[in-house]
Amino acid sequence: MSPEEFRRAGHAAIDWIASYLESIESRRVLSDVSPGAIRQRMPAEPPPRSEPFEAWMADLERVVMPGLTHWQSPNFFAYFPANASEPSILGELISAGLGVQGMLWATSPACTEVETHVLDWLVGMLGLPDAFRSTGAGGGVLQDTASSSILCALLAARERATGFRSNAEGLAACTQRLVAYTSTQTHSSLAKAMRIAGLGEAALRLVDVDENHAMRPEALEVRISADRQAGLTPFFVCATIGTTSSNAIDPVEAIGELARRYGMWLHVDAAMSGTAALCPEFRWINRGVELADSYCFNPHKWMFTNFDCDVLWVRDRSALINTLTVLPEYLKNKATESGAVFDYRDWHIPLGRRFRALKLWFVIRHYGIEGLQALIRHHVALAELFESLVRADDRFEVVAPRPLNLICFRLRGDDVANERLLERINASGRAYLSHTKLNGRFVLRMSIGQTKVQERHVRAAWQLIRECV
Amino acid sequence: MSPEEFRRAGHAAIDWIASYLESIESRRVLSDVSPGAIRQRMPAEPPPRSEPFEAWMADLERVVMPGLTHWQSPNFFAYFPANASEPSILGELISAGLGVQGMLWATSPACTEVETHVLDWLVGMLGLPDAFRSTGAGGGVLQDTASSSILCALLAARERATGFRSNAEGLAACTQRLVAYTSTQTHSSLAKAMRIAGLGEAALRLVDVDENHAMRPEALEVRISADRQAGLTPFFVCATIGTTSSNAIDPVEAIGELARRYGMWLHVDAAMSGTAALCPEFRWINRGVELADSYCFNPHKWMFTNFDCDVLWVRDRSALINTLTVLPEYLKNKATESGAVFDYRDWHIPLGRRFRALKLWFVIRHYGIEGLQALIRHHVALAELFESLVRADDRFEVVAPRPLNLICFRLRGDDVANERLLERINASGRAYLSHTKLNGRFVLRMSIGQTKVQERHVRAAWQLIRECV
Repeated sequence: MSPEEFRRAGHAAIDWIASYLESIESRRVLSDVSPGAIRQRMPAEPPPRSEPFEAWMADLERVVMPGLTHWQSPNFFAYFPANASEPSILGELISAGLGVQGMLWATSPACTEVETHVLDWLVGMLGLPDAFRSTGAGGGVLQDTASSSILCALLAARERATGFRSNAEGLAACTQRLVAYTSTQTHSSLAKAMRIAGLGEAALRLVDVDENHAMRPEALEVRISADRQAGLTPFFVCATIGTTSSNAIDPVEAIGELARRYGMWLHVDAAMSGTAALCPEFRWINRGVELADSYCFNPHKWMFTNFDCDVLWVRDRSALINTLTVLPEYLKNKATESGAVFDYRDWHIPLGRRFRALKLWFVIRHYGIEGLQALIRHHVALAELFESLVRADDRFEVVAPRPLNLICFRLRGDDVANERLLERINASGRAYLSHTKLNGRFVLRMSIGQTKVQERHVRAAWQLIRECV
Repeated sequence: MSPEEFRRAGHAAIDWIASYLESIESRRVLSDVSPGAIRQRMPAEPPPRSEPFEAWMADLERVVMPGLTHWQSPNFFAYFPANASEPSILGELISAGLGVQGMLWATSPACTEVETHVLDWLVGMLGLPDAFRSTGAGGGVLQDTASSSILCALLAARERATGFRSNAEGLAACTQRLVAYTSTQTHSSLAKAMRIAGLGEAALRLVDVDENHAMRPEALEVRISADRQAGLTPFFVCATIGTTSSNAIDPVEAIGELARRYGMWLHVDAAMSGTAALCPEFRWINRGVELADSYCFNPHKWMFTNFDCDVLWVRDRSALINTLTVLPEYLKNKATESGAVFDYRDWHIPLGRRFRALKLWFVIRHYGIEGLQALIRHHVALAELFESLVRADDRFEVVAPRPLNLICFRLRGDDVANERLLERINASGRAYLSHTKLNGRFVLRMSIGQTKVQERHVRAAWQLIRECV
């Protein structure tokens, strides 16, 4: 493509996105295609010769659009949001255009330094412990997802507990029998990480929760004691700030004290709710985080930075780096040898990495701290409104506390009625909610945090829900 | 940002990228900033209030650009390429604009189905075994990097070898003592994966290579026999098609026969060189791949699709899925329960995923098969030219075979002379090469595969190298 062709096609692509976002409310939120329907619209064989941009864009409309669930629709209330925003889209665009690969500081110093700097900013913006700043012994790194972050934290904890023998000789050669702890409500990514790390899912203890679905520290201590008496080695505990099911906030401080007492690594997963700490009035969720060895949250959920963008901070970066570094000859360079730089490839699983910090930087500059705070407050206020609407209708019940912007509710009645209700809502195409189970009962989740959501969308969703009963 | 503001800013961003790519040759390839220099140009505190797009773009020029190493420069000959191209940039842009998250088929069917379809196309385009197609028992999935792909393959092999007991109870509970094999030249990502998976780096056997730096199958068999006699369980072997150091091609067929005989999982890492198989005359590199359990290559290296975009194919997708699936209540849905769809979250480490197939689809449609073949042939011809230039100068020697587009060469003389030569070349800013060690000697690597590289760039690099002696 010549520069002129790229300009023309690029402008058209920008205009297409602008029109898409302008008209997104007119689209069904949840795609209703059948399995295989999208593939059937694609030619069986790839094109032998070049096709023009207009042909791809025509197929984007014809093939792709009917098969999309519109995560950027303000009528998307399912799961947790995966928000984009205009500055974030522009950041991703510039990053793709620059096409730098920041595996080492030396392979593009700005890719590393902008990231380190912006993540230091965020420590202050969120009121997190100074120990996470890169200017001391800690530091932050961008990962793709909280799943990868929790895996990296678990690996660093594993190596700390085995004196790096598991890395060197494998878990079968280690004398310790490692056990990890989390609540019954924790995200499935920890179970997956336990498997990946060779520790086994059976070594993950699921600790009981209280009536608010938050971990019970006294139950944690009972499990730890029993395991120690059985000759096992507690080495890792994960506390969640905002569980996926119900947004429960674990008591990080009490869990952290147990972690210190028993020499365990404390990881705090604040993937969804961490963003709320931009507002001082919501910082109570982070109480006790100064005891954490690692902490992650996802700007790609509630901070308007398009997927993928997860931040992992660690208190002791050397524990993470020593766990994940391997230095072959072809990557050696003077900057690395000087010790004066971060090579972020040593902070995560992949070797290569793109310039993800750019979009995060653009988002922070576009909104400013005050703009971000205003949006978070707006979403929490909308959630408060929705909760009051549910509570005012006797047919429904709110079944979990609403610390922030997720409402767990259900029809008073059996699960079948609630399942049917959810099906009717989603089949309408006018809103999209998802579900969970709490105390064994089927529950609807209304997650309010999409970049563009307004009061009218929340009221319309509630109206739709009532119509679907 | 209003739609109008986004259109205006988006057009400006597109124009900025077009100008950047037009003028890229005038920039130093390798950044010469000192550690910390980029951070010093950034304000200590984040912005309290919104700043306009023009301010971010001004800082892109002032702060970021001096700290970039220009991977998209046609004078970039270091490492392996990480190529972008115009259609790929547009695909990344549209993907960011749509902002869909394809963790499940149900969360955007097109995100899954376009990916499956395009990866089936690629099986044919590369002449790979039909067993990799999704229409049988196999299938392909996009990952971020070959590091992640090899980890997933290793985990599936580990579970196959232990009957899924390592996932369930951990490696310490397994009776087998697993050992894996690769050559001394294999990428460091396998050593890293062995650590992550809890198997330990000591359980990775580095098999001797022949004079062409390719694995010696007879040496592999000797190691396997010794390990079996010692009561160990060989379970995994990685063959590389195009090693990072020298582009050596392992004898996949002979390795694959040993894998079959001893019940080992065969993973083939063709991260860089796999793209060459677009051209029938280069398909000899894949001889024996029909014996592979898994295979990966990186369109983000030599197929003009901006980072990140790695393809992993498996022969038996159930082995991979059963290894990596965890299904909590909040992700359950009818499409998943029907078994008629792929949920790609079960094919890799992260849960969430963006719509990466879009850029790959755009690249294939923009170039067409013939266009892609023409570029690959062009790059191999340029490498042939460069090799002939080196061979014609008695001061230099070519120190490894050149199967495709990487030339390993050095000054006849000691390592210090070669190290100084490389430093002078890179300090000039006019080209960027990297190094490796082969047979203990310092070697320069000239990797020719950047999207826009032309004969004049290769000739200029050779001229520069001669000037720097």
